[in-house]
Amino acid sequence: MAVPGPGNSMTFRVHVPSDFSAASDLAAAVGHAGAALTGLDVVESSNRVLHIDLTCNTIDDAHAALVSEQLEALSGVTVESVTDGTFAMHLGGKIAVAPTVPLDNRDDLARAYTPGVARVCNAIAADPAEARRLTIKGNTVAVVTDGSAVLGLGNIGPAAALPVMEGKAALFKQFGGVDAWPVCLDTQDTEEIIRTVQAIAPTYGGINLEDIAAPRCFEIERRLREDLDIPVFHDDQHGTAVMVLAALTNALRVVDKPLDEARIVVSGVGAAGSAIIRLLLSDGAARIIAFGREGVLRSADEQPDPTRAWLAANTNHDQFAGSLSEALAGADVFIGVSAPDILSEADIASMAPDAVVFALANPDPEVDPAAAARHAAVVATGRSDFPNQINNVLVFPGLFRGLLDAGASEITTPMLVAAARAIAERVSPEELSAAYIVPSVFDPMVAPSVASAVESEALSEGNR
Amino acid sequence: MAVPGPGNSMTFRVHVPSDFSAASDLAAAVGHAGAALTGLDVVESSNRVLHIDLTCNTIDDAHAALVSEQLEALSGVTVESVTDGTFAMHLGGKIAVAPTVPLDNRDDLARAYTPGVARVCNAIAADPAEARRLTIKGNTVAVVTDGSAVLGLGNIGPAAALPVMEGKAALFKQFGGVDAWPVCLDTQDTEEIIRTVQAIAPTYGGINLEDIAAPRCFEIERRLREDLDIPVFHDDQHGTAVMVLAALTNALRVVDKPLDEARIVVSGVGAAGSAIIRLLLSDGAARIIAFGREGVLRSADEQPDPTRAWLAANTNHDQFAGSLSEALAGADVFIGVSAPDILSEADIASMAPDAVVFALANPDPEVDPAAAARHAAVVATGRSDFPNQINNVLVFPGLFRGLLDAGASEITTPMLVAAARAIAERVSPEELSAAYIVPSVFDPMVAPSVASAVESEALSEGNR
Repeated sequence: MAVPGPGNSMTFRVHVPSDFSAASDLAAAVGHAGAALTGLDVVESSNRVLHIDLTCNTIDDAHAALVSEQLEALSGVTVESVTDGTFAMHLGGKIAVAPTVPLDNRDDLARAYTPGVARVCNAIAADPAEARRLTIKGNTVAVVTDGSAVLGLGNIGPAAALPVMEGKAALFKQFGGVDAWPVCLDTQDTEEIIRTVQAIAPTYGGINLEDIAAPRCFEIERRLREDLDIPVFHDDQHGTAVMVLAALTNALRVVDKPLDEARIVVSGVGAAGSAIIRLLLSDGAARIIAFGREGVLRSADEQPDPTRAWLAANTNHDQFAGSLSEALAGADVFIGVSAPDILSEADIASMAPDAVVFALANPDPEVDPAAAARHAAVVATGRSDFPNQINNVLVFPGLFRGLLDAGASEITTPMLVAAARAIAERVSPEELSAAYIVPSVFDPMVAPSVASAVESEALSEGNR
Repeated sequence: MAVPGPGNSMTFRVHVPSDFSAASDLAAAVGHAGAALTGLDVVESSNRVLHIDLTCNTIDDAHAALVSEQLEALSGVTVESVTDGTFAMHLGGKIAVAPTVPLDNRDDLARAYTPGVARVCNAIAADPAEARRLTIKGNTVAVVTDGSAVLGLGNIGPAAALPVMEGKAALFKQFGGVDAWPVCLDTQDTEEIIRTVQAIAPTYGGINLEDIAAPRCFEIERRLREDLDIPVFHDDQHGTAVMVLAALTNALRVVDKPLDEARIVVSGVGAAGSAIIRLLLSDGAARIIAFGREGVLRSADEQPDPTRAWLAANTNHDQFAGSLSEALAGADVFIGVSAPDILSEADIASMAPDAVVFALANPDPEVDPAAAARHAAVVATGRSDFPNQINNVLVFPGLFRGLLDAGASEITTPMLVAAARAIAERVSPEELSAAYIVPSVFDPMVAPSVASAVESEALSEGNR
């Protein structure tokens, strides 16, 4: 299913003789190699040679090498260099720290630094709550990872996780106006992670845990929520859960089924799966069956950890004991946050009429979405190249914007539900369709709507 | 010695009747109260009333209240509000995190975030050294404090220290182009601080320790230098030492005395004092006598900690056993990094001809600099309202710029000496005088000169 994409955009600088008449041959060679040409720029022209930049989306590094070969196979064409657009964008990192105050003369220094700053320090020492007003704390979130479960890459460690955390920080600012900072931890020990986050907390108005493996992530989140007076949010759990609730709300509108009657099969009980199940239950879902790697969760069976024990106790009331395929027969909803290609087209065909399929494993879904769409009424994935992308970027910027604006000290389930409702409602009844159950990532009103809903909920709870 | 300053700039909004003819009375009242008027703006004028903003430098809050009273004492004048310029500048904090890449469409997201970012992560996982090139690490420094020794304020804790660390981060960017981030730690335990800094290190290309109390700061710096593969620098120690060496180099040029023959008395053997003594010794000073709170350091005496034992072993070779006043008699240089008002004018008068006095206790120096200047040839302080301010902002931005540009893994004494030389040399022989031994904080060539000197030294050491 791999297709050329902008994440693999390459610029091939080629030399051709100045009498090379067939620029179209270059484009044809790119197309023949299966890449998608997005730009052709003549960057230098002399009486002997032309320098041309061919920019095109490729599939992966091997594919880019193939494109290069095919270009060189053209008579008179030399590939001088290949620039990787993604690596070029990441050079030097993707965020910067900038002063927001002038520092151009002695008076500026006297106010921003010594001696004036001492009075501001004293004001905070006298009343710590002033830190939210007089420092960056009121608008700043830590994006904390131990690098143990990064994207689909797994345990690549803190340094290799930094590009993701920087990207997340950039998205926080771009979509939510939140100043976020990457905290990549050189430890994967639960207690060390907890202690470190406690130690660095004074600078921050919120903690966003990111790409920390289960089951460690549950304990870390729970303990930090108990100990800290600022909101702690594990995006892989709750960001995904909010997005799934928002998307499922709209999907069930499309097929006109109520959440409390829908038979829902969830594959995956890690960070995302367990949070999705909890949030769906809290919003009224009553007929959920959950599958882990070892099969269906039943309260009748011994469970290996408290998370699974809770899930087993609160799902599968009929003690269903069959396989995932068997569970899908007649089901209304499938939600997969597990592994690629575990379902067949026949599995989807066996579901109830007007089935909803969220196949969210990344980059390769639980079932080929094109095959699923031949049988299910609504299909969603985590990918940007299919309709209905379940993308947490619709959640976390607005959610933290609202939490910070409220000065909230914790995140509650009603806030998550409020955020999901706000996202779902950004798709108007006129827009709603099987191919449009979630708003665009670039809908500028999503984050403000989520922020406003979360802030209202926080204020109504007296959560400060 | 307190004088009105811009760190206490207040804006008084006053109402006066529109037939109030004597705006000069307002200015006179401000002046009479001892404040310094810096601006008078009519912000609104109607046929009945004028609204005027009077901005003036005051001494402290009590003084501002006095100014307010004196204005209200004028017939027909009402003070509507008082705005504190320093607090206004600090509202919302003084730094922000900004994306440095476009995030305006799907292609941008695909490159900066998923799926493209995965290739960048893999490149770093395969070769961790790539983190300096492909992430913020190559330009980013942590400003780490435990809030235990903040400015002259003492142990005010991490939250109250944040305005200083933000200010430092802003100065790092403004003067050195370095992205610096405040890390305010909610612990004052040596081992916890070490563990926390180790844990957060992957994001950073350098660690700037700040305002951590002695003797804990020595152990923390030493252990982190051993453990981390990035430079660790305690600014209160080495930033101050570099500035003192730079200033002393030029002061001794003014009085034409060689460093290795100068008899130097140092008061204060905390973070700053011990680092100053070490750096002066490494640059050739041979006749130093050091005083702590309990008096002179002698190797013949038992010392309470390793730092003092080292200092005692390497100074005061004649085993001088008298008081600070006695030591000053005939001394060429006094360097104070200790406490206010511990010396009298007579002490300074007893020094050798063409004496050099650095009275650096902040905000109140060891001796009244005006009194000292009646006897010493060169006087320097830490204050901005006297000539020759010893200000670390001349050091740390350029120093870390050079370290990051070199990709250095540690800081060495020759780098500190190189930085001091570069600063000293920014004062040309034509400019050099008793009142101008250090370049202006706003000399735009200081940081690049320091950076270049440090980078050259790092490269010549093969320090990577």
